[in-house]
Amino acid sequence: MNIAVAQSGGPTSAINASLAGVFSAGKISEKIDKIYGALNGIEGIINERFVDLSDKIKDNNTIELLLRTPSAVLGSCRRKLPDVHENGEIYDRITDVLRRKDIHTFFYIGGNDSMDTVAKYSAYLNEKNISDISVIGIPKTIDNDLCGTDHSPGFGSAAKYVCSTVQEITRDSNVYSVPSVTVIEAMGRHAGWLAASSCCIRANGETAPHLIYLPETAFSIERFLSDVKNEMKKHKAVIVVVSEGVRTAEGKFAAEEFQSGLKDTFGHSYLSGIGKFLEKLVASDIGCKVRSIELNVMQRCSSHIASADDIISAEKIGAAAVEAALSGKSGCMMTFIRGSDSPYRYSIGTIPASEAANSEKLFPTEWISPDGNDVLPEALDYFLPLIQGEITPVMKNGIPVHMTIDFGIK
Amino acid sequence: MNIAVAQSGGPTSAINASLAGVFSAGKISEKIDKIYGALNGIEGIINERFVDLSDKIKDNNTIELLLRTPSAVLGSCRRKLPDVHENGEIYDRITDVLRRKDIHTFFYIGGNDSMDTVAKYSAYLNEKNISDISVIGIPKTIDNDLCGTDHSPGFGSAAKYVCSTVQEITRDSNVYSVPSVTVIEAMGRHAGWLAASSCCIRANGETAPHLIYLPETAFSIERFLSDVKNEMKKHKAVIVVVSEGVRTAEGKFAAEEFQSGLKDTFGHSYLSGIGKFLEKLVASDIGCKVRSIELNVMQRCSSHIASADDIISAEKIGAAAVEAALSGKSGCMMTFIRGSDSPYRYSIGTIPASEAANSEKLFPTEWISPDGNDVLPEALDYFLPLIQGEITPVMKNGIPVHMTIDFGIK
Repeated sequence: MNIAVAQSGGPTSAINASLAGVFSAGKISEKIDKIYGALNGIEGIINERFVDLSDKIKDNNTIELLLRTPSAVLGSCRRKLPDVHENGEIYDRITDVLRRKDIHTFFYIGGNDSMDTVAKYSAYLNEKNISDISVIGIPKTIDNDLCGTDHSPGFGSAAKYVCSTVQEITRDSNVYSVPSVTVIEAMGRHAGWLAASSCCIRANGETAPHLIYLPETAFSIERFLSDVKNEMKKHKAVIVVVSEGVRTAEGKFAAEEFQSGLKDTFGHSYLSGIGKFLEKLVASDIGCKVRSIELNVMQRCSSHIASADDIISAEKIGAAAVEAALSGKSGCMMTFIRGSDSPYRYSIGTIPASEAANSEKLFPTEWISPDGNDVLPEALDYFLPLIQGEITPVMKNGIPVHMTIDFGIK
Repeated sequence: MNIAVAQSGGPTSAINASLAGVFSAGKISEKIDKIYGALNGIEGIINERFVDLSDKIKDNNTIELLLRTPSAVLGSCRRKLPDVHENGEIYDRITDVLRRKDIHTFFYIGGNDSMDTVAKYSAYLNEKNISDISVIGIPKTIDNDLCGTDHSPGFGSAAKYVCSTVQEITRDSNVYSVPSVTVIEAMGRHAGWLAASSCCIRANGETAPHLIYLPETAFSIERFLSDVKNEMKKHKAVIVVVSEGVRTAEGKFAAEEFQSGLKDTFGHSYLSGIGKFLEKLVASDIGCKVRSIELNVMQRCSSHIASADDIISAEKIGAAAVEAALSGKSGCMMTFIRGSDSPYRYSIGTIPASEAANSEKLFPTEWISPDGNDVLPEALDYFLPLIQGEITPVMKNGIPVHMTIDFGIK
């Protein structure tokens, strides 16, 4: 029998490691013949666009490169499938394609929407009494907002980048003798895990970040300005880390709420991110030296500073998914179960994919300071194991080497 | 006799390596007793704020951390000194302070403005017939725009970060099946070296960046849009790298020229950087998926991916400055002289600091494509040696360890 694997949603530094795990475990199993990679997520199944991964991964060196390549070598998509009772044809189509290629398990590496696809296709297979095809979800998101798992592959590497970079920016901010404020914007539309993870630099003796704002508590301009003024009394260079998704008490995105009616050069309504907005706010209200820095996609693609724990466990959870399929599981998402923080121990389990689909695991409010402008030390115990270890890039010409797959067509 | 060293201008990943070079060479010289670090550049001399570096650097491990710490451990300043004939008092003050501490050479690590200080103080010393005090400049700038030297310490590490990150963003941009444009903004107000250095990723087989725009050639919106449309015919994900300082044919900064009369939420005139502006332009004119990414201060402080060639040669040029002082030199800036590209060979020399002060070394127009939207392969030969080698961070708790100096007062 053959298996297929696809990648979906926003890229991370670890999604290729999970692919490598599926491939390696599939390769050593006597029950599995071909391991197909579907291109651009579920679209690759629907449009019957596959690569035979054995043609692309011929040796261990390629596996090593795959572990060190950010983004998704098989391409990605953002397609959410319809409800099976609204449109069952797409599921018939998927089943036809899988049957035609003798594919008995489909592994889908992705976030919320991908787990929705796993849950829906699994429900379809049950309804149709199809027992020779299974579908298994492998978690992936830098936002760390998937329910039912201790954490998600991709998050640890993103957090390690955020920590290292916030620490380097802290150094950069401390060179001048004039007081200054630096606002660093981290990803996280709904969950503040990434911004919160910047607290890890305190384990190395930093006082920064001095303020951390997450979407999980209401954001107020007045409180923010008063917090900043307060921190300026204590620190020459105040470092603020803010989630892109911080919201007002009314639940609106703060970056949007406070900038209405502006038009840009092209006559479109103009919205800067929360970092740039807070920069302008501080300049206007406090009048000190201020700058904002958006960590942007570097958070999810800076594999040159990936967390070894993240990459290695992403590979393991991919391999564990193959074992789960061989043992008869379907319709589930693989999960990490934490045994202890220190020493860090975890095991791998499964939950029904429907429990992870369409829900979000928020940063625990009990780990947020009562003032809503910082995170508590408990958070550090949770984060630290996830950013440990380095996975040295393979360098050529002074630049990391990546693995790429030629899709043949554009 | 004692010596003093200070750091000035914008931080880099290599300015502490040059400090380490001065310290180590000073330490082994029998002629030198104390090695003072002046805090916040020339202000530290004027305000008599020194640290005895032997108190702060007690072992080789600290030197190793110093080599791996971005920014300037002694702090920096942006103070330009007046002409000696307009205000000689400041130079008298500097001389008094140096004499009081028995300091016979002052090493100033910095860029254009710092070399201006070196040149002016040297002229003052000559005019006053003071021969027992010398002053020597050590180059530093991520912009690589210092004249009289093959390149400047700090540039190689910034270029290595730019290359690695542009390559990672290229991976990230290629995951979706829809056509897209990604505009990456690199530092460089006047000289395009950093943006141009992104061409190095082609040495590893990348076709990106597909377009590179530098301040050295006139920027036109019409040409830009036509270039992008052209590249979209060839590549699904078009990668554009642009210097922050690109200018119109009239010599005005393009980012400012094209955005007039806009007011932000606070009633101030609003100016986004060139990257964000080009993003809005592409969205408005072409209407495809488009995003912009500002590499921001990460270019100058990401020491976790520093170039070993940059860090080691920055240390060497610092040590060579001490030797130059001991051999009687003064009023000069240390320089790198390239022997050959491949194998890469260089030596260290000196030029009068006045030749480096207040002038800018631009990216050679003969290395720019006739269309003004790319750089030629000759540039690659120049850049590649400067980004070679890695200097692995010392890690603790999964985050690089930095060295810091407590200034005692805020």
